[in-house]
Amino acid sequence: MERFRWPAAAVAAVGLALALEALPSVLCWLRAGRRQQQRPPRRQVLFFPSQVTCTEALLQAPGEAPSGPPACCRCSLPHGESSLSRLLRALLAARASLELCLFAFSSPQLGRAVQLLHQRGVRVRVITDCDYMALNGSQIGLLRKAGIQVRHDQDLGYMHHKFAIVDKKVLITGSLNWTTQAIQNNRENVLIMEDEEYVRLFLEEFERIWEEFNPTKYTFFPKKKRSQ
Amino acid sequence: MERFRWPAAAVAAVGLALALEALPSVLCWLRAGRRQQQRPPRRQVLFFPSQVTCTEALLQAPGEAPSGPPACCRCSLPHGESSLSRLLRALLAARASLELCLFAFSSPQLGRAVQLLHQRGVRVRVITDCDYMALNGSQIGLLRKAGIQVRHDQDLGYMHHKFAIVDKKVLITGSLNWTTQAIQNNRENVLIMEDEEYVRLFLEEFERIWEEFNPTKYTFFPKKKRSQ
Repeated sequence: MERFRWPAAAVAAVGLALALEALPSVLCWLRAGRRQQQRPPRRQVLFFPSQVTCTEALLQAPGEAPSGPPACCRCSLPHGESSLSRLLRALLAARASLELCLFAFSSPQLGRAVQLLHQRGVRVRVITDCDYMALNGSQIGLLRKAGIQVRHDQDLGYMHHKFAIVDKKVLITGSLNWTTQAIQNNRENVLIMEDEEYVRLFLEEFERIWEEFNPTKYTFFPKKKRSQ
Repeated sequence: MERFRWPAAAVAAVGLALALEALPSVLCWLRAGRRQQQRPPRRQVLFFPSQVTCTEALLQAPGEAPSGPPACCRCSLPHGESSLSRLLRALLAARASLELCLFAFSSPQLGRAVQLLHQRGVRVRVITDCDYMALNGSQIGLLRKAGIQVRHDQDLGYMHHKFAIVDKKVLITGSLNWTTQAIQNNRENVLIMEDEEYVRLFLEEFERIWEEFNPTKYTFFPKKKRSQ
């Protein structure tokens, strides 16, 4: 039986039509790739105290964060950018993983951001200090209730780091404890650095501590005395 | 009167001899210049707690720091490198200026390093937090006695920064308060960065606070209440 054959001209015409159809997407993809290559690595310094601004626009929805203030937000706070909103944006950019290594964590806004990421399927891991995690207003209990993994020290010294790693690409580190007191009243700094070497070194430190604070190694009723 | 004239050959010979004499120095200078251009900017991360090591070799003399342990040092501590000794080295590299913006400063070794720099003619300026500067063991009083300029806050919030700027070229910043407790017991990080942009931003922050904490603006007997 003789097989049906497309005339060569028809094949060429279909091919050309498909190529023309795909051309804008291919050009867009190539342009995006070039932009990605050309974009300088992120380098930002945030200083605190931060102006108190409304952060509902960033935090209200588990989906995409809208660019402006939400229609429902009629609060009297300013709706512009602040050091806190920039820190929230840097965190909410996470798509795959977030490592947090924090001495004190009681800021409700930062707590909500971390829970949002967890709801979106980002793998969140938290290391904290055992003395501060049980204080009034601590976010650690809420994160645990939400199903986020938390590990803590049992050492004589403090787990005094204050860093985060977003998608294993961006390091956020500085003097800032994640508390409202620090955000609104203290002189603080936070560096946001898309830097392969620094990320690698801090991630190694995170994994070292994460393993060391494995709950199977916890001692119950430890005797802990601390000096200032 | 006819002036004495050097024969052309003699002039050429003297010129050649001088050129040959200077050649090694010129080559060395050129090589040093190239090394300077080629040397990548300093980037270092120190993690704490630091092993307790002897730092006498770095701190004993107001002149040059010897490379090995001093002959007189017979202490039982190890004499190798540690995070603290690396931090001391980074500070002691200062030749012109040192800006310190520190929440808590009680480490005797770091205090000695800062006094050494002051004795060597480095311009040292210190900003600190008023609550912590008067605590037992604080180095702030000793630095003031030595003639170093210190300014402090009178705010509701803490002056919680922990950074140093060496010769307006290297930024030292992180989570570490300059206390023996933090150095020997806490999980901490310090970044040492030769980075023009970060140095500029932190220096601007320093100058802003320095001006704001000008003693002519101090209020005596201020009412200060702080929450944790």
